[in-house]
Amino acid sequence: MTNIAILGFGVVGSGVADLIVKNNEEVVNFGGDEINIKYILDLRDFPDSPFADRIVHDFNVILNDPTVSTVIEVMGGSHPAYEFTVAALNAKKSVITSNKEVVANFADEFLRLAVKNSVCYRFEAAVGGGIPVISPIIECIRQNKIREVRGILNGTTNYILTKMFSFGESFKAALSDAQAKGYAERNPDADILGIDAARKITILSALVTEKLLSPDDIHTEGITEIRLADVTAAEKIGCKIKLLGRCINDGDAPYVMVAPFMLSGDSALADVSGVYNAVEVVAEPLGNVMFYGRGAGAGPTASAVVGDLMQIMRHGETRGPEVERSSAIAPFDSFSCRRYFAFERSAAETVKATFGDVDFIDSDECAFITPVMSESEAREKKKSATASGFAPLSHIRVL
Amino acid sequence: MTNIAILGFGVVGSGVADLIVKNNEEVVNFGGDEINIKYILDLRDFPDSPFADRIVHDFNVILNDPTVSTVIEVMGGSHPAYEFTVAALNAKKSVITSNKEVVANFADEFLRLAVKNSVCYRFEAAVGGGIPVISPIIECIRQNKIREVRGILNGTTNYILTKMFSFGESFKAALSDAQAKGYAERNPDADILGIDAARKITILSALVTEKLLSPDDIHTEGITEIRLADVTAAEKIGCKIKLLGRCINDGDAPYVMVAPFMLSGDSALADVSGVYNAVEVVAEPLGNVMFYGRGAGAGPTASAVVGDLMQIMRHGETRGPEVERSSAIAPFDSFSCRRYFAFERSAAETVKATFGDVDFIDSDECAFITPVMSESEAREKKKSATASGFAPLSHIRVL
Repeated sequence: MTNIAILGFGVVGSGVADLIVKNNEEVVNFGGDEINIKYILDLRDFPDSPFADRIVHDFNVILNDPTVSTVIEVMGGSHPAYEFTVAALNAKKSVITSNKEVVANFADEFLRLAVKNSVCYRFEAAVGGGIPVISPIIECIRQNKIREVRGILNGTTNYILTKMFSFGESFKAALSDAQAKGYAERNPDADILGIDAARKITILSALVTEKLLSPDDIHTEGITEIRLADVTAAEKIGCKIKLLGRCINDGDAPYVMVAPFMLSGDSALADVSGVYNAVEVVAEPLGNVMFYGRGAGAGPTASAVVGDLMQIMRHGETRGPEVERSSAIAPFDSFSCRRYFAFERSAAETVKATFGDVDFIDSDECAFITPVMSESEAREKKKSATASGFAPLSHIRVL
Repeated sequence: MTNIAILGFGVVGSGVADLIVKNNEEVVNFGGDEINIKYILDLRDFPDSPFADRIVHDFNVILNDPTVSTVIEVMGGSHPAYEFTVAALNAKKSVITSNKEVVANFADEFLRLAVKNSVCYRFEAAVGGGIPVISPIIECIRQNKIREVRGILNGTTNYILTKMFSFGESFKAALSDAQAKGYAERNPDADILGIDAARKITILSALVTEKLLSPDDIHTEGITEIRLADVTAAEKIGCKIKLLGRCINDGDAPYVMVAPFMLSGDSALADVSGVYNAVEVVAEPLGNVMFYGRGAGAGPTASAVVGDLMQIMRHGETRGPEVERSSAIAPFDSFSCRRYFAFERSAAETVKATFGDVDFIDSDECAFITPVMSESEAREKKKSATASGFAPLSHIRVL
C-alpha cells in the first residue's frame, strides 16, 4: 500500500483522485501496489465528495505522517507551494507537481533537495499537460546533441490563433470565444502575454542545458499584437503564425525566448491546431521528433501526475536531471532570423529604401519577408522607417 | 567502464558506434559511465574502420567474456538473432535490439528470460526508429485505459503515398522514386505489402494488451492496390490515405490490423508526410497523444539503441512489460467502420441498388463513402455488385 497526499482539490487534484479510483486496475498493475489517497489538503470542505473524509486543512498533518511517501502538489502559484515542497522533500517524501510556476522558479533547489533526501521530485504535468515530454527528454534523448527544443506550449493562445486562421476572426473575437468556451481565463494575461509559455520554456531549457534561468530573463512576447491581416498574409505564402517557446542550444549560452513565429507548412508544428500543444526536439543524430497532445485539462494533467507516481513506485529514487541556477543567456539582440514585416500600402518607397528590393506578399499592405537579420538590425530598420513617417504595422519572426 | 558488444556492423551497427564516439560527452554525462565497445561481431572484416581491432567473427568470444554486460543486436532477421539473444540473456547480459522481426516473433520469451536472469531486454528502436515510443508507452501512459494505439509505422509506404498525394504520381512511379532515393529496397515487398508495419503493430499491441500475437495472425494489407484516383478522390473530400497499423483495445480481444485508411484532415496522423513515422495513443483520461519523427536511418535508430543503453546504465534491471503469447484477436469479419468504394462510372445503378442512396464524390468514377458497416457486410455488398457485372475498383476503410 502506497500512501499519498494531494495538496489542492481543484480541477487537477480531483482529476488525480478520479483517475486513481476509476483506473484502479491499471494503476495497481502498472505501479505494482495499491494507492491510498490518505489526505487531501484544501482550505474548503467537500461534504458531498466521496473523498470528504480525506480532507484536511493543516499541512502538518501530512508532513508529520511518516506513512505518506509521496505528496502531489497541484495547488498552483509559488506560495505556499514552495514552502510545502521544501518541507515535504526534507521530510523524505517524494513530491510530484503540475505547477509550472513553482517548477520554473525553484526546480534547481527542489531537485537538489530530492537528491539530498534520497527521494524524487517530478513535474511531467508542468509542460504539455498529459503529453509525455519531460520523461522522454530526460530518459530517451540526452545521448544526442540537443540543438533546440521548441514548442507550442500554451493551448489558449493556439486556440485563438487557430480561430483567427481558420475562421478569419480578429484577435479580440477569438479571445472572447476562447473565454466563452472556458479555454481562456477571465483575466487572460498569463496566456496571451506569453507568461505561461515562458515558464514552460524555462523548464524545457533547464532539462536540455542543465541550467535554470529565471522566466523573467527570457524575452517574452505574447500574441496581442497579431492582426488578422498578418494571419491572412501568412496563409498567402503557405505559413501559419504560432506562439513558440524556443531554446536554441547551439553556442556557449542558449537563446531562450517566447514569441509569435511564422512557420512554413513544412514544419510539423504548423499543423498543431486548436488547444493542442506540441514540443519538438532537434537533435543529432536523432533529427526532429515531436510530442503532441492536449496541453491542459483535468484528465490529461492527471494522467501525467499519476504517471510520475507510477515511475516513482516502479523505479524508486532515480538520478534526475541535474540543474544549476544560471543567468547565462545569449543576448537577444544578436538573435538572427528571417522576418515578416507589414507596413501600410503607401509606405512602399520607404520600405524599398529601408529593406532593399523585397517581394511584397499579395495583400492590401506592404507585407514582405526579409533575409536573415539580427534583432538589432531589425530595430535599426524599424527606427529608420518610422523616422520616414511609416512605423511598421507588424514584425513577426520566421522560424 | 561499461563494456558492450555490437552484433552486426551494418548501417545501424556503425551508427551506434559513431554515436557513442561522437557524442561521448553526452553519453558519459547521461549514462554516468564511460562506454567501451569491446567487440563488434560481423562476418566481414573492416580493415579501414577505426573499430577494426574490435571486429570478431565468433559470437562465443562475446558470450564467454564476463566483462561484457550488454549486447546490442542490430543484425536483423530472426536467425541467428534469436539464438544469440537467448544465449546472451542466459549469460546474464542485457540485450538491446533494433530488430523488429525478432521482437515481434519472440519478445515474450526474451522478456521472460531477462526477468529470470535479472537483466534487461529493450527494443525502443524496433518501432518508430528514433522516436521515443516504446519507453513513453511503458513508462508514462499505462495508468490510462488505452483504447487504441495506431500509427504510420513504415516510412517507405508513407513516402510513396505522400508522393502520390502531393505530385499526382502513380503508385508505380512513386515506388521507383522511393527506390532511386534509397527509401525502398530493390525488393520492396516487406514494406509495400505491410509486412514491416505488421511486425511493428504486433509489438505495440503487446505493450498495450500484454499479449504477443503472431504477425501472421494480423489482417495485413499493403498499399499496392491504391490507385492515384483514390488519392485524388480522398483529397476532394479533405482526406488523405495512409497505411496504418491499428490495435483497437476496446473489448475482450483486440482488433489488430494493417491496412490503408482514409483519414480526415482533422486527424493528427493525416499531417504526417514523407518518410516520417508517427504513433498515436488514444487513452482515458489522457485523450490523444502522438509521437512523431524519423522512423528509420542510421542516426535516429542509433539514438534509440543508445537511449536504451543509457536507461539500463541509469536504472539497471527494471520491471519491463509482462507479455504472454496469445492468439486471441477479435475476428476481422466483425470490424466495423465507414468505407470508401470506387466503381466505374457506368456502375451508378448497381451501386445505388447495392449501397443505397450514397453521395458520389466529384470524380470520373462512382466513388463514395458508406455508413458504418462490418467487413462481412462489405464483402457481401462487393459480391453482390460483382455479380451484377461491376467489381469494385477500390475499397478503403475510413478511420
